[in-house]
Amino acid sequence: LSRIERFAAAVSEAGMAAALIMNPPDVYYLSGTGQPCNLLVTPGGEPVLFARRYLDLARRASHVERVLPGAGFSAVAREARLGDGPLGMELDKVPAALVDRARRAFPDREIADCSGLLLAQRAVKDAGEVEAMRASVRLFDAVHAAMCEHIRPGIAEYELAAEVERALRRAGHDGVVFQRRWDAKLPMEGGIASGENLSTISRGPITVTGVGMGEAFPMGASRRRLERGDLVNIDLGLNRAGYHGDMARTYAVGELPDGIEPLAHACREIQDVAMGVIRPGVSCESVYEAAKAAAERVGVADVFQGYDDLHGPYIGHSIGLELDEPPVLGPGVAEPLREGMVLAVEPKLISPAFGAVNIEDDVVVTADGCELLGDLPRCLFAVGESGDVARIP
Amino acid sequence: LSRIERFAAAVSEAGMAAALIMNPPDVYYLSGTGQPCNLLVTPGGEPVLFARRYLDLARRASHVERVLPGAGFSAVAREARLGDGPLGMELDKVPAALVDRARRAFPDREIADCSGLLLAQRAVKDAGEVEAMRASVRLFDAVHAAMCEHIRPGIAEYELAAEVERALRRAGHDGVVFQRRWDAKLPMEGGIASGENLSTISRGPITVTGVGMGEAFPMGASRRRLERGDLVNIDLGLNRAGYHGDMARTYAVGELPDGIEPLAHACREIQDVAMGVIRPGVSCESVYEAAKAAAERVGVADVFQGYDDLHGPYIGHSIGLELDEPPVLGPGVAEPLREGMVLAVEPKLISPAFGAVNIEDDVVVTADGCELLGDLPRCLFAVGESGDVARIP
Repeated sequence: LSRIERFAAAVSEAGMAAALIMNPPDVYYLSGTGQPCNLLVTPGGEPVLFARRYLDLARRASHVERVLPGAGFSAVAREARLGDGPLGMELDKVPAALVDRARRAFPDREIADCSGLLLAQRAVKDAGEVEAMRASVRLFDAVHAAMCEHIRPGIAEYELAAEVERALRRAGHDGVVFQRRWDAKLPMEGGIASGENLSTISRGPITVTGVGMGEAFPMGASRRRLERGDLVNIDLGLNRAGYHGDMARTYAVGELPDGIEPLAHACREIQDVAMGVIRPGVSCESVYEAAKAAAERVGVADVFQGYDDLHGPYIGHSIGLELDEPPVLGPGVAEPLREGMVLAVEPKLISPAFGAVNIEDDVVVTADGCELLGDLPRCLFAVGESGDVARIP
Repeated sequence: LSRIERFAAAVSEAGMAAALIMNPPDVYYLSGTGQPCNLLVTPGGEPVLFARRYLDLARRASHVERVLPGAGFSAVAREARLGDGPLGMELDKVPAALVDRARRAFPDREIADCSGLLLAQRAVKDAGEVEAMRASVRLFDAVHAAMCEHIRPGIAEYELAAEVERALRRAGHDGVVFQRRWDAKLPMEGGIASGENLSTISRGPITVTGVGMGEAFPMGASRRRLERGDLVNIDLGLNRAGYHGDMARTYAVGELPDGIEPLAHACREIQDVAMGVIRPGVSCESVYEAAKAAAERVGVADVFQGYDDLHGPYIGHSIGLELDEPPVLGPGVAEPLREGMVLAVEPKLISPAFGAVNIEDDVVVTADGCELLGDLPRCLFAVGESGDVARIP
């Protein structure tokens, strides 16, 4: 069955009459075009792609046979032949004013959220998608090379960001990162943070966020200059051909500060435990619980995924056409893992006492476990002033 | 009156009981913090800032006195003392599912769109905002230098993008661009396009968009390599300290192609005419009409803002904390210009026959006209292989 056919079956099973898809990554996933379009998927009916702009380009890129012009919902309402049940829309993503307009075009019909159905389908990647994500994860090799080349005492976080972005663009990054959450925002080089910025958790989710260039966007690289003995963290969304990787590493400027080596060991141990648990049928929650138990066992529970009252309730999440896809590997998420899911696994130890130690890697769930999508050593790197790089552990 | 007091007056005048502001640039404008917060503005009542995360950081950055923790709407409903009338929310920006949750927290109250009220206030900049935007426009100097240094036969559009991004980051760009439209997306270096990509209008609004790295995001720089005699266009959002500039220039690779010089003259003439019309009290529409009449007079009406059935209905738009603010300088927009508005003025001539010629500059509306925010020559640049740069006209 095609992606659209499988989605139509889920729409039908959920009791919806049809789904109207507008969010660009969702439209791309189902129809094959990145042009702005509304895709009407009706169980038992032919899918219709309405090009909000650039009909010819949408037609050329999409495998959907019926492509019509139409920016508003009245064109959709004229074409739609709907049975009983609500009309699905992506209510987590489409602004309320637009959904209100759809309500007026379909006056007697309930509008229901169909994002969960589509995201559940998107969570399991096919072989081509896994290959695309492998290529995306490999973009981090360029990041790592840029970090090792430019991390020196005196360089500012934003100057490091400039080098990482340049390396990413030259390596084939799409230039933008897609996120599901409506108010999420990320520079191309993600969060670069050093020194005291490592433990200032700001604007984004509870992770190593950095503090940014100013209050208008207090996240990402700042004007802080690296000093000998600092730790530096980079955590970013990699996007190539629409598919994202999510990777993080920690670097030391010159020699490793005292007390960090055991934390690097602990971080790696937690990641090993989490990846050792991942296989089809295991619940998302139990991966988190295993990681948390490992953190307790190695004595870092108080700084695991944050500190004090800031502990991120996750050890990872699904990635794909968006960087922050469900499911989350966190407490209360009973959903079982399925073969073909691609997951970021990201233990981080954060504290004002030492900053942060963070490694994040991406795995695909296989028939009996999981497989790493990249081959960069999962360790902390100490970058000497002559450019020599030591690995810990 | 403070920004919050002026907004409260507008909310009251619109008959709303209060407004609940969630969109980060709006929250930043009113409260001074870029942390994720919900800001409740009640006419006659004290404003309350609810920190969705990181209470301490929100408190430290904001001038609002009453800052409470609270990620959901029930905290807001508990605090709110509302008179008659609907509750305003940013319905053009906040996803429907979140607004539905607000509806459940305020069960007997209508939710109305208050974005227009706030955007009308934001459209008029104070002196500090104009200075911030001047600094943002000056980021384009770094773009221009990078373009002149790297435009040579053989470089790919995405390699040029890498150099422009690096230059922008090093010059102090915030690393992200804020746009109002829910599905808008732009790489930091905006749209770089050359050769046949200049007239392939894709994904975004009707302008010079470029075709991108692939179908997942078919906009911006592509893998096409520049050839001698090409035109190259760059059009991008500049963001420094939260305030955006919007600038564009066209470059020739080596010598100027035949027939382009008169188009560069025409483009400049249209921009001069549009800027000559801008002053307080003039309608947005009449700026557009004057530009269009100028395009007709100089014989380029058929390629003005696009070609065939693709003609962008605008000559510019307001910019500020978001790149694509209202009002648009376009047909049917009767709104009068006001002193302190900052406007992008962007004539472009596009055709498959010659590609595109595009200049975009930003002006602030003064008491009796307008003033350019930058001082880069408003012309086309021909970049020779030895790095010499000629200006046309």
